Amino acid sequence: MRVEVVAIGTELLLGQIQDTNSTWISEQLATIGVDCYFQTKVGDNLDRIALAIRSSLARADGVILCGGLGPTQDDITREAIAMVVGAELEMDQSMADQIAAYFANRERAMPKNNLRQAERPPGSTFIAQRKGTAPGLICPVGNKVIYAVPGVPYEMKDMVQRAVLPDIVKRSGQTKYIGSRVLRTWGLSESGLAEAVAGRLEELERTKVATIAFLASGVEGIKLRITAKGETQASVETVLGVEEAALREILGDTVFGTDEETMESVVGEQLKVKGLTLAVAESLTGGLIASRVVAVPGASDYFKGGVVSYATAVKREILGVEEDLVVTEAAAIAMAKGVAKALGASVGLSTTGVAGPDEVEGQPVGTVWIGVYVSADQEISFARLVRLPPGDRAVVRSLAAISAMDVLRRALSS
Amino acid sequence: MRVEVVAIGTELLLGQIQDTNSTWISEQLATIGVDCYFQTKVGDNLDRIALAIRSSLARADGVILCGGLGPTQDDITREAIAMVVGAELEMDQSMADQIAAYFANRERAMPKNNLRQAERPPGSTFIAQRKGTAPGLICPVGNKVIYAVPGVPYEMKDMVQRAVLPDIVKRSGQTKYIGSRVLRTWGLSESGLAEAVAGRLEELERTKVATIAFLASGVEGIKLRITAKGETQASVETVLGVEEAALREILGDTVFGTDEETMESVVGEQLKVKGLTLAVAESLTGGLIASRVVAVPGASDYFKGGVVSYATAVKREILGVEEDLVVTEAAAIAMAKGVAKALGASVGLSTTGVAGPDEVEGQPVGTVWIGVYVSADQEISFARLVRLPPGDRAVVRSLAAISAMDVLRRALSS
Repeated sequence: MRVEVVAIGTELLLGQIQDTNSTWISEQLATIGVDCYFQTKVGDNLDRIALAIRSSLARADGVILCGGLGPTQDDITREAIAMVVGAELEMDQSMADQIAAYFANRERAMPKNNLRQAERPPGSTFIAQRKGTAPGLICPVGNKVIYAVPGVPYEMKDMVQRAVLPDIVKRSGQTKYIGSRVLRTWGLSESGLAEAVAGRLEELERTKVATIAFLASGVEGIKLRITAKGETQASVETVLGVEEAALREILGDTVFGTDEETMESVVGEQLKVKGLTLAVAESLTGGLIASRVVAVPGASDYFKGGVVSYATAVKREILGVEEDLVVTEAAAIAMAKGVAKALGASVGLSTTGVAGPDEVEGQPVGTVWIGVYVSADQEISFARLVRLPPGDRAVVRSLAAISAMDVLRRALSS
Repeated sequence: MRVEVVAIGTELLLGQIQDTNSTWISEQLATIGVDCYFQTKVGDNLDRIALAIRSSLARADGVILCGGLGPTQDDITREAIAMVVGAELEMDQSMADQIAAYFANRERAMPKNNLRQAERPPGSTFIAQRKGTAPGLICPVGNKVIYAVPGVPYEMKDMVQRAVLPDIVKRSGQTKYIGSRVLRTWGLSESGLAEAVAGRLEELERTKVATIAFLASGVEGIKLRITAKGETQASVETVLGVEEAALREILGDTVFGTDEETMESVVGEQLKVKGLTLAVAESLTGGLIASRVVAVPGASDYFKGGVVSYATAVKREILGVEEDLVVTEAAAIAMAKGVAKALGASVGLSTTGVAGPDEVEGQPVGTVWIGVYVSADQEISFARLVRLPPGDRAVVRSLAAISAMDVLRRALSS
C-alpha cells in the first residue's frame, strides 16, 4: 500500500515554522511497511489543497492531510475534501453537541466558528478528539481513502497512532501485527556498527523474521530499530526480544538504552538504584550536562548540582584544583573529586577541554578530558581522554557532554 | 514569479532526517517577494524525481531541487533533470579538472564516481562549489528554470544566496534591490506587539515603502522582519534604518537585538563594554543560562562560571543563602550575590522557581524569581518575579533562562 502525506498551512510555505509532522508520520509509515513516495506542503488555499489531494490520490492508495481543521476561517481542509469528493459538508449533530459540551464543561463561551468542526463530507467518519476540539476524519473515496488530522503535533500523533495507522493496516489487507524496538547506542560509528552486526543482518536477510534499520541521530548516537511482523502482539514481542538479546550480545555496553530512554535517564536510573548522588564540574560543556540531568523528572532524588568552572580561578577556589595546566588528566580528576566534596555528593563527573575556535595549552580543538570520582564501597577516580572531531563549537560541546555521561554510565555499570 | 522547492532523498521520506532545507529556502523566497505555493519531498528514484520536477514546472515558473548531487550511485538529480529536458548529460572538462584538482590539492585519491559531478545537461550552467565538491546547476527549460543545489545545509545556503536568489530576482524582471532587517523582541505577546505598532503598519500599508512581518520564535521571543525594495542597496538600507528607528521609538527596550544577535550575545556585549564579569547561580534552569552564555565566542572574556544549586544544601553551603524558603525574593538576591562573591565576579544572576510537575513551597508551577547583583560604581541588588504559563518542564526552564538574561539586560542598559 502507498500513502502520501500533505502538510497544510501557509506558515509552512513561508518558512515560519518547520514541518516536523510529515517527518514523524513518515517514520510511522515506514515502521508498518507502507511506502510513502511523495510528501507535499501546501498553503491555506482551497483550490491548491484540493489539487494536492487529487495529485496524491492519483499516485497513491491514500493520503494523510495534516492541519487546517481548526475553527478559524483559514482552516479549510474539510472544504477541500468536500470539493475533491464532489459533495457538500454535512453538520453532524452528535459531534456538534460534543463540542458544545467541551466548552460548557470548561465554563467557556463557544465561538460560533467552532461548530464548523462538526461538519464532515457524506460517507466519512470522525476520529474522536481526545486532546482538543478538532476531530479528525476518515473519508473513503472509491477504493482509496483520505485521512485528516490536526496540525498540533500532540493531537496529530494521538490520532495517527490510535486511528489512522490501524485503519491503514486494515485496508492494506495486513492481518499481521507489526512492532518495533529501538536500541540506542553510543561509541561506534555507523560503519562500525554495520560491520559488528553484519552476520546478524545476513541471517535476517535469510530468515526474514525481522528487519534492522540504522538511524543516525546526530550528537545523540545511532539508533538500531528492529521491526518484526507476526500473527499476534505476543509473537512479535518474542521476536523483538530475541533480536534485542542477539544484538546486545554482539554490541555489549555500546547499547545504552531502548526506545525513549536517554543517556541522562539511564545514568539517573543507575544512580537511583545504587543510592548514589551526583555533582558535575563543567568547563568546556558550560552547564550542558547539568541541564540535561535536571531535564529528567525526579532528578532531584539524586542530583545535587554543579559548578561551571569557566574561569581557571573558579577551578582553583571552588573545586580545589591545584594543577597548573587545566586540560589534563590530573585536573579532570581533581575537578570531579572537588565538586563531589564541595557539593556533598558521592559521585563527581567533570569535563575540561578545548571547544574552539582556538587551541588551549597547546591542545588541539576537540581534546576533552572527562573525570570521574565515585565514593561508594570503595573510592575510585580516573579520567578518560576523548578526541572529538574539531568543528562547530556547539557540536564539540554537545558531543563532550554525552561522552562524559557515557563514561560515567560505563563506570557505574562495571 | 512563482518558484517551488523539491527536496530529494529517500531518508527524508523514511522520517530519518528532518527536511530543514525547504523551510530555510522558503523563508528566503518570501523575503524577496517570490510566491512558493507547493513544496515536495521525493526519494532517490529517477522516474519520481522527474515527475516531481515536471509537476512543479507545470504550476510554477521555476523549481529549486535540493539534494542528490553527490558522487554516489543514488545521487541522480542530474540524470532526472536530463530526463525532463530530454537530453543526454555532457561532461564538462573544465569542471572535471577542477574536481580533480580539489582532490590533488588535498593529496587524496579521487574516487572515479566524483567525475559524475562534472556532468551537466546541455544549455545549463554550473554554480561553483566553494565548500565541497558538488557544483550546483542552473538549467533553463523554455521560459522556465530548474535550479539544483546540494542537500548539505551549509553548501546549499551558500549557493542559494550567492547564485539562485540573484538569478530569480533577475528573471522575475525585478530591477530593484530587496533587503530586510530583523528586530528581536522579548516581553510582549504577538497581539501586544501588533497593537503597539498598529499605527506604523497602517502608515506602511499606505506608503508601501516597506513591509513588516511578525515571526513567532517559540521560547526565543518574537521577531519583527522589516523588508524594503529600492533602486540601490543604499536606498534600501536607508529605508530599513528609518523603519528600525521608528519601531525602536515605539517599542523601546522590548527590542533586544537585530538580525543574528541573541539574548546572550547582547548581554555579553554589555558586560564587555562595561568591563564587568558574570557569574550565574541556577536552580530551576539547571545550567541552561551558563550553557547559553558560553555558546558566544569570546565569552571567557567576561564569564567566570556558575553554580547549579539544585539541592537546597548547595544553595546554603556554596552560595551562603540563609533563607528557609528558597523560592523567594530574598533567596534569589542572596543567590545572585553569593555566586558573584564565590566566583569573584562583579555581576551575579540567579534563578529559583518551580519547573513542575509539582508545586514547591506552595508556589505554583511557573513561578520564577530572578535575582540580580551588580557591583560597579555602586552596589545594586534586586529580584523580579516572573509567572510563566505552566506546561512542559523543558519549556518552563527555557523561558526562565531567557527571562533571566532579559532582566539582566534591562538592568545593565539603565
